[in-house]
Amino acid sequence: MAYQAPVEQIEFILNRIVSFPELSGTERFAEATAETTTAILTEAGKLATEVIAPVNRLGDLTPARLENGKLRSSPGYAEAFRALAEGGWIGIAASPEYGGMGLPQALNMAVNEMVASGCLALQLNPLLTQGQIEALEHHGSEELKALYLPKLISGEWSGTMNLTEPQAGSDVGALTTKAERDGDGSYRVTGQKIFITWGDSDVTENVCHLVLARLPDGGKGTRGISLFMVPKLIPDENGNPGIANDLRVVSLEHKLGIHGSPTCVMSFEGAKGWLVGEENKGMAAMFTMMNAARLGVGVQGVAQAEAALQQAVTYATERLQMGPIIRHPDVRRMLAVSRAEVFAARAICLACAVALDMARATGSEEWAARAALLTPIAKAHGTDVGMRVADTAVQVHGGMGYIEETGAAQYLRDVRITAIYEGTNGIQAMDLVGRKLADGGAAAMALLDEILDGAKAAQTDEPDLANQLWQAAETLREATQDLLEQDMADRFAGAVPYLSAFARVLGAHYHLRAATGGGSKALARLYITRILPQFAADLAAARGGVGDLEALDDAVLSGQMTG
Amino acid sequence: MAYQAPVEQIEFILNRIVSFPELSGTERFAEATAETTTAILTEAGKLATEVIAPVNRLGDLTPARLENGKLRSSPGYAEAFRALAEGGWIGIAASPEYGGMGLPQALNMAVNEMVASGCLALQLNPLLTQGQIEALEHHGSEELKALYLPKLISGEWSGTMNLTEPQAGSDVGALTTKAERDGDGSYRVTGQKIFITWGDSDVTENVCHLVLARLPDGGKGTRGISLFMVPKLIPDENGNPGIANDLRVVSLEHKLGIHGSPTCVMSFEGAKGWLVGEENKGMAAMFTMMNAARLGVGVQGVAQAEAALQQAVTYATERLQMGPIIRHPDVRRMLAVSRAEVFAARAICLACAVALDMARATGSEEWAARAALLTPIAKAHGTDVGMRVADTAVQVHGGMGYIEETGAAQYLRDVRITAIYEGTNGIQAMDLVGRKLADGGAAAMALLDEILDGAKAAQTDEPDLANQLWQAAETLREATQDLLEQDMADRFAGAVPYLSAFARVLGAHYHLRAATGGGSKALARLYITRILPQFAADLAAARGGVGDLEALDDAVLSGQMTG
Repeated sequence: MAYQAPVEQIEFILNRIVSFPELSGTERFAEATAETTTAILTEAGKLATEVIAPVNRLGDLTPARLENGKLRSSPGYAEAFRALAEGGWIGIAASPEYGGMGLPQALNMAVNEMVASGCLALQLNPLLTQGQIEALEHHGSEELKALYLPKLISGEWSGTMNLTEPQAGSDVGALTTKAERDGDGSYRVTGQKIFITWGDSDVTENVCHLVLARLPDGGKGTRGISLFMVPKLIPDENGNPGIANDLRVVSLEHKLGIHGSPTCVMSFEGAKGWLVGEENKGMAAMFTMMNAARLGVGVQGVAQAEAALQQAVTYATERLQMGPIIRHPDVRRMLAVSRAEVFAARAICLACAVALDMARATGSEEWAARAALLTPIAKAHGTDVGMRVADTAVQVHGGMGYIEETGAAQYLRDVRITAIYEGTNGIQAMDLVGRKLADGGAAAMALLDEILDGAKAAQTDEPDLANQLWQAAETLREATQDLLEQDMADRFAGAVPYLSAFARVLGAHYHLRAATGGGSKALARLYITRILPQFAADLAAARGGVGDLEALDDAVLSGQMTG
Repeated sequence: MAYQAPVEQIEFILNRIVSFPELSGTERFAEATAETTTAILTEAGKLATEVIAPVNRLGDLTPARLENGKLRSSPGYAEAFRALAEGGWIGIAASPEYGGMGLPQALNMAVNEMVASGCLALQLNPLLTQGQIEALEHHGSEELKALYLPKLISGEWSGTMNLTEPQAGSDVGALTTKAERDGDGSYRVTGQKIFITWGDSDVTENVCHLVLARLPDGGKGTRGISLFMVPKLIPDENGNPGIANDLRVVSLEHKLGIHGSPTCVMSFEGAKGWLVGEENKGMAAMFTMMNAARLGVGVQGVAQAEAALQQAVTYATERLQMGPIIRHPDVRRMLAVSRAEVFAARAICLACAVALDMARATGSEEWAARAALLTPIAKAHGTDVGMRVADTAVQVHGGMGYIEETGAAQYLRDVRITAIYEGTNGIQAMDLVGRKLADGGAAAMALLDEILDGAKAAQTDEPDLANQLWQAAETLREATQDLLEQDMADRFAGAVPYLSAFARVLGAHYHLRAATGGGSKALARLYITRILPQFAADLAAARGGVGDLEALDDAVLSGQMTG
């Protein structure tokens, strides 16, 4: 059975779990009514199932390639992308002033999820374009906005993000790409960038690169970096693609998955660029794009989990080994745990999106802090769940799961990158325990208070589950206090398990809300009794500090027995 | 840096952790002295590093293929296999009467690990041949043994295992391949088998298929199944390969990994076969082969973990991002956890092998029961660790991990099959809570007693660690008692987390023994404080029973929110 868009579950989460209906009470999102939401989700679901999903395997089998330096995308991609662009799906959350719909990010993310369930490799293109739109909306000059936004929003042009260089990965500040002033207010950009997703495209008529580079008088590290818009084809006086800029794709990477997404080594050879934001403040502008993309990547994890799980459920229903295997206790356990995890991860991502929207609609600092806190959790946990569920889906298929034609393995290969790009999940966890606790833990404690209140409110209906959640949230609060008193190196050593524990408590919170709000009590029970309890081991590891790790010689890591 | 055989760690585990030296005190294994062991491990390590590992990527890039119905193996495989065969490495544990060395399985498994670290796809060939040798040694007639064993042990011929059919996977009893008596004491076998590893080979001059089939008067289910030796080329009167048998490779599968290992659809078309063991008792004979192979597959998991981890440690040492990333707390955490897991999984596999050897050398029922108990744990846990560590190794590489040329992704793709073949890890866990507790838990309790004694003995040296282990083992004992009182469906629902908890407790036991016996105290502390604690959540899930799973509608598994 083909992918079926989970419209019912998404609407349930939006309406009953994450306060999405409040948005339509704000002036900014007054149009995000229940009717609009249903219509959009239903249409997007149709698009994902009928137009996007059919190209997924084509891209896997026939990767994007370079032909005489020109990109040739995978079969069917151009048509699928056109349908997506022409439906207006890229600009759902973009400014109406430039052709967008001005709807909430929560709705955009729900649509993104469906498209990414259909084809992750293709969906990366509009996802990065959306990130670029946000960066320009916040940091671009009026000229840049007027020139680029309508084309990006319509999907005529696409956008990329150029950070990484061979020596500058997680350490962005080590980049060496240079920018020089060109007299006419523009700049010349020179350097090499790697891992550039959709660094070229034949599905759009122009490709707009946002490139981080250093001016001659830019200082060292991240503070001396500026951001430039460097289009593949320089727009002419009418804003149409004009002469070719001095940049090229050097090569494409051979990757474990997302074969349909061209991952480019880019060479900028004195390419003409225009400043985005202020000189030497490029990182701030790029962070706007990265934060949007981080939530988007968490959503990709959920998307791949959903698609993989649906395939596994279908297989388990049809595969007979002493009866349908979906009735075998261990297979049922795998599917049930996966379904409970997908629900939780989806709720976390949509809660993050609603927080972003509330912050924008109301200017509230609290909502902004909530969104900032949830972003690394949504990214890392969403993609962790994506990997776990895709892996389980392979296992449910038994030997067939290892055969490429089955399709289960592609989800596992494709989703693997989501834990790495847009900041590895380790980087996300460090962001959580570092920057996101830099408010003295205020945002985290506010969220924990809500969770504890929720557990109290559920005491009557679901006393067992409410108590388990309450205990877990209390323990997490204590662990958070402990972390706040630790050195940063100690925090970093426990960052990943801390994020994992936080995500489990959050997931249990949303499950409990579902159980007492018309959702599946059985699924909530499963999550709270079988998945939540892992928080304890996670928090033990989170509190472990860096000392035990430093006590291990490098030689022991290499396998030596003493030391 | 290329793969370095972990000879030191293997010797440490054999000599200090798993009572391997006791074997040389038995008559059967008197030759397994410390000197012999060191010499064999050192030589095998050289072979793995210098001869086997270099073909690993070649096989990935150039899979085995069919050319006019004939198998063409991957480049370099024939030469590497020859070196392995001519070194006598296939028959280390085989009977000296037929050309084997008659050494312990523990030593064989240690060698297998190194070869499988070098190239999993190639090592599958000798692994299955070794399983066939064992099956023939135990169940073959004198004629069959005299004809086949010398050729299999020398590596002139290779062996396969033919169980699976499209409708008969985990449910072997559903197979429909037929056998008919042929008058001269031989049989004719007709049917189709799938997922046949190395079902054809051009690295050996003959391929010997052990095929499960049903005689006309064979009953239904597994009790009516017989086992046949069906050679590709029928041996002539001198025992040399003669005329071609009526069987062929229909096609090869396209797989996620182990591209160099041809996975065949086999068609037997009235092929001549000879009975192995008794009529209708084929499953017993096949189980001999499967049990040997199960431990061997657990070892494959450890092997791939070791190779992947070594590559990750090397990368983390050399990759500079604000200093070598091996000094970043989160990267160090990933490497340290992986190293601690590899040590534990290796110790469990070697403990299982030593138990097998002790049972054979002494005829002890207790040792046999220990080996039987440890086999599913070694298989499932060894391969789970293989997958976790290979996955972590990709993560340590960041974006480079997703690029195929780096090699980290190949380990992840290759090792994924080990959790599926030779009985999925779910099947292993059901074997543990079903068949392996069918003695009323005697074998499990005996092992838990040893663990508790070990914890008591370590009280003086390592009081904290000993106490944590003691508590965990006590909780595991209680959970085991509870499981023994459950229905089988309830046990099966908790089987996988139960196996996981048992493995963690065992791993902690071996780590504690290492810490108090000259091994790394820091590594033991890491395992016991950060990895062991997950046993609690595992046991909570293990005790959950099937009721919560059955309470979930199929529709909820598909994503519906109510129910």
